[in-house]
Amino acid sequence: MQESHAWSGRFSEPVSELVKKYTASIDFDKRLAEFDIEGSLAHATMLHKAGVLSDDDVAAIRRGMAEILDDIRAGRLEWSVDLEDVHMNVERRLTDKIGDAGKRLHTGRSRNDQVATDIRLWLRAQIDAIVGFIAELQTSLLELAEKHADTVMPGFTHLQVAQPVTFGHHMLAYVEMLARDAERMTDCRKRVNRLPLGAAALAGTTFPIDRQYTAQLLGFDDVCHNSLDAVSDRDFAIEFTAAASLVMVHLSRLSEELILWMSPRVGFIDIADRFCTGSSIMPQKKNPDVPELVRGKSGRVVGHLIALVTLMKAQPLAYNKDNQEDKEPLFDTVDTLIDTLRIYADMMRGVTVKPEAMRAAVLQGFATATDLADYLVKKGLPFRDSHEVVALSVRYAEGRGVDLADLSLDELKQFSQLIEQDIYQVLTPEGSLAQRDHVGGTAPNQVRAQIARHKARLAS
Amino acid sequence: MQESHAWSGRFSEPVSELVKKYTASIDFDKRLAEFDIEGSLAHATMLHKAGVLSDDDVAAIRRGMAEILDDIRAGRLEWSVDLEDVHMNVERRLTDKIGDAGKRLHTGRSRNDQVATDIRLWLRAQIDAIVGFIAELQTSLLELAEKHADTVMPGFTHLQVAQPVTFGHHMLAYVEMLARDAERMTDCRKRVNRLPLGAAALAGTTFPIDRQYTAQLLGFDDVCHNSLDAVSDRDFAIEFTAAASLVMVHLSRLSEELILWMSPRVGFIDIADRFCTGSSIMPQKKNPDVPELVRGKSGRVVGHLIALVTLMKAQPLAYNKDNQEDKEPLFDTVDTLIDTLRIYADMMRGVTVKPEAMRAAVLQGFATATDLADYLVKKGLPFRDSHEVVALSVRYAEGRGVDLADLSLDELKQFSQLIEQDIYQVLTPEGSLAQRDHVGGTAPNQVRAQIARHKARLAS
Amino acid sequence: MQESHAWSGRFSEPVSELVKKYTASIDFDKRLAEFDIEGSLAHATMLHKAGVLSDDDVAAIRRGMAEILDDIRAGRLEWSVDLEDVHMNVERRLTDKIGDAGKRLHTGRSRNDQVATDIRLWLRAQIDAIVGFIAELQTSLLELAEKHADTVMPGFTHLQVAQPVTFGHHMLAYVEMLARDAERMTDCRKRVNRLPLGAAALAGTTFPIDRQYTAQLLGFDDVCHNSLDAVSDRDFAIEFTAAASLVMVHLSRLSEELILWMSPRVGFIDIADRFCTGSSIMPQKKNPDVPELVRGKSGRVVGHLIALVTLMKAQPLAYNKDNQEDKEPLFDTVDTLIDTLRIYADMMRGVTVKPEAMRAAVLQGFATATDLADYLVKKGLPFRDSHEVVALSVRYAEGRGVDLADLSLDELKQFSQLIEQDIYQVLTPEGSLAQRDHVGGTAPNQVRAQIARHKARLAS
Amino acid sequence: MQESHAWSGRFSEPVSELVKKYTASIDFDKRLAEFDIEGSLAHATMLHKAGVLSDDDVAAIRRGMAEILDDIRAGRLEWSVDLEDVHMNVERRLTDKIGDAGKRLHTGRSRNDQVATDIRLWLRAQIDAIVGFIAELQTSLLELAEKHADTVMPGFTHLQVAQPVTFGHHMLAYVEMLARDAERMTDCRKRVNRLPLGAAALAGTTFPIDRQYTAQLLGFDDVCHNSLDAVSDRDFAIEFTAAASLVMVHLSRLSEELILWMSPRVGFIDIADRFCTGSSIMPQKKNPDVPELVRGKSGRVVGHLIALVTLMKAQPLAYNKDNQEDKEPLFDTVDTLIDTLRIYADMMRGVTVKPEAMRAAVLQGFATATDLADYLVKKGLPFRDSHEVVALSVRYAEGRGVDLADLSLDELKQFSQLIEQDIYQVLTPEGSLAQRDHVGGTAPNQVRAQIARHKARLAS
Repeated sequence: MQESHAWSGRFSEPVSELVKKYTASIDFDKRLAEFDIEGSLAHATMLHKAGVLSDDDVAAIRRGMAEILDDIRAGRLEWSVDLEDVHMNVERRLTDKIGDAGKRLHTGRSRNDQVATDIRLWLRAQIDAIVGFIAELQTSLLELAEKHADTVMPGFTHLQVAQPVTFGHHMLAYVEMLARDAERMTDCRKRVNRLPLGAAALAGTTFPIDRQYTAQLLGFDDVCHNSLDAVSDRDFAIEFTAAASLVMVHLSRLSEELILWMSPRVGFIDIADRFCTGSSIMPQKKNPDVPELVRGKSGRVVGHLIALVTLMKAQPLAYNKDNQEDKEPLFDTVDTLIDTLRIYADMMRGVTVKPEAMRAAVLQGFATATDLADYLVKKGLPFRDSHEVVALSVRYAEGRGVDLADLSLDELKQFSQLIEQDIYQVLTPEGSLAQRDHVGGTAPNQVRAQIARHKARLAS
Repeated sequence: MQESHAWSGRFSEPVSELVKKYTASIDFDKRLAEFDIEGSLAHATMLHKAGVLSDDDVAAIRRGMAEILDDIRAGRLEWSVDLEDVHMNVERRLTDKIGDAGKRLHTGRSRNDQVATDIRLWLRAQIDAIVGFIAELQTSLLELAEKHADTVMPGFTHLQVAQPVTFGHHMLAYVEMLARDAERMTDCRKRVNRLPLGAAALAGTTFPIDRQYTAQLLGFDDVCHNSLDAVSDRDFAIEFTAAASLVMVHLSRLSEELILWMSPRVGFIDIADRFCTGSSIMPQKKNPDVPELVRGKSGRVVGHLIALVTLMKAQPLAYNKDNQEDKEPLFDTVDTLIDTLRIYADMMRGVTVKPEAMRAAVLQGFATATDLADYLVKKGLPFRDSHEVVALSVRYAEGRGVDLADLSLDELKQFSQLIEQDIYQVLTPEGSLAQRDHVGGTAPNQVRAQIARHKARLAS
Repeated sequence: MQESHAWSGRFSEPVSELVKKYTASIDFDKRLAEFDIEGSLAHATMLHKAGVLSDDDVAAIRRGMAEILDDIRAGRLEWSVDLEDVHMNVERRLTDKIGDAGKRLHTGRSRNDQVATDIRLWLRAQIDAIVGFIAELQTSLLELAEKHADTVMPGFTHLQVAQPVTFGHHMLAYVEMLARDAERMTDCRKRVNRLPLGAAALAGTTFPIDRQYTAQLLGFDDVCHNSLDAVSDRDFAIEFTAAASLVMVHLSRLSEELILWMSPRVGFIDIADRFCTGSSIMPQKKNPDVPELVRGKSGRVVGHLIALVTLMKAQPLAYNKDNQEDKEPLFDTVDTLIDTLRIYADMMRGVTVKPEAMRAAVLQGFATATDLADYLVKKGLPFRDSHEVVALSVRYAEGRGVDLADLSLDELKQFSQLIEQDIYQVLTPEGSLAQRDHVGGTAPNQVRAQIARHKARLAS
Repeated sequence: MQESHAWSGRFSEPVSELVKKYTASIDFDKRLAEFDIEGSLAHATMLHKAGVLSDDDVAAIRRGMAEILDDIRAGRLEWSVDLEDVHMNVERRLTDKIGDAGKRLHTGRSRNDQVATDIRLWLRAQIDAIVGFIAELQTSLLELAEKHADTVMPGFTHLQVAQPVTFGHHMLAYVEMLARDAERMTDCRKRVNRLPLGAAALAGTTFPIDRQYTAQLLGFDDVCHNSLDAVSDRDFAIEFTAAASLVMVHLSRLSEELILWMSPRVGFIDIADRFCTGSSIMPQKKNPDVPELVRGKSGRVVGHLIALVTLMKAQPLAYNKDNQEDKEPLFDTVDTLIDTLRIYADMMRGVTVKPEAMRAAVLQGFATATDLADYLVKKGLPFRDSHEVVALSVRYAEGRGVDLADLSLDELKQFSQLIEQDIYQVLTPEGSLAQRDHVGGTAPNQVRAQIARHKARLAS
């Protein structure tokens, strides 16, 4: 219906139905409704202070908005595509309820700065939630790490057995990644938390607004200092989605490892049945569906990042309708990220570690060869030479089908006369672990120190 | 409910609610339902021919499926998240209706090959629709091109006026792009149209199936020749989305031009009100929302392409749950593409061309300078030298603030004695156009020849 | 030097050094030189036929170009940044050698259509080479597949043991993927192989050119039918890079598997030393560097795809300088793809399969559970019910720590009275394989049939 | 040559030439050489303090490295592909010069932590440079903004004339974007500036290293707290490339505007000849090559972002050879970004503004319609009603082909009796500007205040 629109007077024909559907955003932007109302109430309070709205107007607006909020929360509000978007839907409802005061609310603002404000309010709340969910997942990982602070497992490079590490140490690697993720979210929040309202359509407004006051009412750190930038900036959405992509890449990496570790040939862990599904055809199957989906969903979030970057590339100032396409990728990124963090925190509590399988794998892979090299260096051999000695020993042991620790002292001495009986302590996994005793090393006491550090950080 | 699942017997605890929601696909894969049924009916027919299903079984299956199809079309079927996906929902409904025959339907197949078959059937139908919508848009563009086969407009390079072209010629550039798009869709269809069914979970089945017969029943050109590949291949989804991205890039380019041409300083066209919207704050505005959204939505489709490529990167064979993430990007790509093609075909019929503004722009930009250069070449001057003569003439005319055609013969002769009175015919836009009279050139008769060629092609 | 440029007369100040470096393309487009010359010679031949160039001119051009080609091949030609690009470098050298005839060569063309022609000629040659390298890799895979047409290995879904397959069958999955890749390259070639020359700057030319003749001389299938499209179209580069991304995704998947299979806990294969490297610190390491790099390089090619799509998004017609950025991503895509295909064909010949490890893995994972289910179906139990029987049997066997084949007949009969002594044939890996005897199934004779089919295809 | 390698003893055949070329990184990682040496010197100093290296060793290492640094700077060092990478090239040269002490340098570290340290040192230096270049560009933009703090131009939304702004205000929008870019770079630097050295291959080392001391010597803020994460983390490269993509998107947007503004129909600006090039065929052309290339190069950097994200997706811990592919995208991103920032700062000083053309455009587009609406609101009409009044006035004026300011008072009063003679002050561009007098608004005094704020910020 033509008269529904905010801008109909100038037009000689109504918008076609196909266009209405193609251009309307109400189907997805209605989730901004509570933030739209929060922003409107602050705007009204500021306009009242500025003398633009009367006492009665602002009282009516508050009352009307409270009712609308109730309606929304009760699922009673019927959203209309004819009213295009969440802003017009709310405003029309308000005007229906309170008359002219509702029409006066839009004074000194435009939908361009209004929607930018809504998204920032919404995203700020989501970032705060995400930081919390990251902490929960870290807590879950720290519990597992603590339980296995000295459980020996093979550390891999190139998926080849490299050196012994502890499973707790391995879990801590992901705690570190997530700590950076939380930092990035917090840094991003600073740039989200600036107020565009007051930029109006693009140039500011002729009404005597007080933007700092509105910012203060809404908990923003600052205002956007240029009106053209304020309405066209979507950097924060891109920065957030890039940060979200990194979280997903981290969880995709952990997923890859969980899937691998649960593969029967590796058999390092089991995941509780409630996180797995079976097969419609192969009755024996137990599939790690959750980590597989997480790995897959990393692509989804990266796709949204590219969608947003492509969206903004080469857009002239100031607001263009292209920007309406910012919401769906952003919404889905947040939903995917939160769901994934939550399910992951839960799932890691359902991981059972199989220490024997891990230990067996360590013994299969010449994991302590570096320790032999270091032993020789400490006896005076330059590192590069000792490396060569060990390489030849490994080749010999491999030919015989045994581990280094299984070679006799005589056999070992073939490669260097520096090797003595004390070598056999060095060649055990536990001996290897214990010696990597510096900040960031895999020695169990270092692992425990890191767990303590992270716990203190999360508690603060 | 545990017993709902296709694979419950092996498991000691039910799937958690969060996991159920995270892993279920029924919310989006239900749109495959009709294709799922089509595939099942062909499978049943083949099993019957192979002696695996009895006459009664296959009759019951057909009857049951017909009822389910009715229920779906009438919106009566209630989809259950507990039943995970469209396949289990349909099968459970079938078994409820017809008993054991329904349970026998899944013989010799798995959900892995079943879902791959469903998507291919669905995508094949969408490609056919898309090729049709591309043709409609081409028809719309050809109408406009025909109307303006000799309407002069400036041809731009670097957004600088380069040489005169006709508006019809400019429209034909997009007809060409869309013709390639249709070719690519058709090429992609060949690789979509191969039957994975019979690959079962990953290795084929022990039942005496006849895959070529099923392929024939379903109109597939061939079967997938390797069962592991059949269940894990999503190339066709990536190839399709890449082809769709190119269509969107083309329409994004046209959108950029429409937006520019409708900008008041350029003023080459107007777009009918029904494709535009206004401003909630600026009453004079008429905004080309549709092309702006199309430009924005190109990012969306490119994002889906990246999501799918990232999804498949480094996945080991055969089926992994990651692949469930193929559907939403693919579905949204198809929806976005079809909506965009349809609205575009309609919108181009609402474009009004303003020939005077275009002609004025040609005269402002020294558009016929190349014609002067060519004139001199034809009089014997090497091209590089004549280029230099014209460059100096342009610099002189620009200094005087006039077009080349406004210089007197004496002024022109300053730069080359080869210039005679006949130069003034060459320097008109129409003279310039008419001389570019070869295949692909902008001469109006060439433009008409191309229109005729495309019309014949579309009619065939 | 100002006078070096093709367009200097109009300008009042020379280009700054920084700009010259930023805008010049000679550093990378010089690799097009031979194709530039090939295109120029055909253009000259056509201009001669059209009466634009004299006998002497065309003879001089041919002679000059032959000398330049010799200089290039001998590495004697010094490329100048002042001359911007390969076209101006070659033309200047020609004019230095033959005088005015060289200046006349640029008649009826522009650098816009010239560069488009060069890239298409170059890419066509690369595609032909790539199709050859794909065939070589397929041949290498087929050799391996043939050797192991009946080597039992576990087929995985979700990286869990699913059903037995043969290693030959697994290799054939990649042969299929590569066959689609070759198809896509061939389809893409059709759209590469169209001649833009004659579009001149954007509108065609006033000279009486014969584009079909030029196309014929250069082996193009057709001409580009719209001049604006001809100079601005880079679809073919995007389509090619998308096709290349798919090849890389396939090889990235195979790489993932090779890395996994070579991991000591899996131990299915070994890769010859000449494709591996060691560690500077861990003397025992042997790292599958090549597959790891291939997996990593898939990102590189996908990045180029996105670079090209982003490049073209929303570009107005016709030629813009943005397009100069098409070359480096395209060149690097081709180089990466060709190097990767070549090294992969070689490396697959250095893969040693370890059948015992594969067989052991099959026996560990209840791989024949589906065979038990199928057995029961054949005895009359509906599939869904037999699935449940087997699920419970697996749970029982898992509890006892044995395979299904290790259960006694009495134990098995607990779950279904339909089970008889003949079940033990069904439960062997070889029995399982042999029964999957239909097109695309893993039965060794089907694997051999597919190998024969591919060999015939490649021989034709 | 086999013996060249750091790991040769274990291997029975040398690496093939093709593999050597495919896996070597020396062609691109040699640019890290100075940072490699800086890291090695700090490592040696730490090992000396820890008692691992003698006084003589460390003195020899310092002397040797000083010579190598001289050789590198003088271009005398010949890089060898046989030595794979920059680390082995430098170490081999060192050992050639100083013997065993050189072999001892690699004690307690691995190439895995060494390369991670090198890249971080290098990237930290680049970020510092980039922040400086961003400031230079901001300075250049501020100069232009100051010159045009009250030059009227049309503010656009949807590329339609919306409201008057000043050109200075428009330039400030980009200063804001760049200020965020600098913030993001600074935030990213925090996560770059952590020391991985000491993680050794993946698990730490058995030598008594002091990582905090090394960190202090190299100016790192902290150490990486987990060795597995330290060697596998490439987050910082992705975060940096995402931040760089945003800078490029901003400059791509400004480029789009410059290109548009320089198009003859718009004619708002001119760009100095030294930043433009001409046409080889159209002598009149002056093309804004630099902004076009910048627009194009945004795709390049976005492509690198995707390459890096794809690279890391689903990589298991710890180091994999895939990671070698991090360097080229990162290096090219830095080079592209720095070149672009430098050329842009220079180019903006070559922009000439044409105030008359801008003013004419304002008067063409009903730019002050909002001011009429605000005028009516201030007289008591609710905003939505006044919007409707103005919409009808615009429709009327458009029908008559005149601006609102050209309507008589009687004509205006047709639409609202509230309109009085004072409306004509409101309807001038200057009147409109002056009234938008709040933080972030376009009133010239606000523009000057923002310029002052930014200048103070940059000076601090």
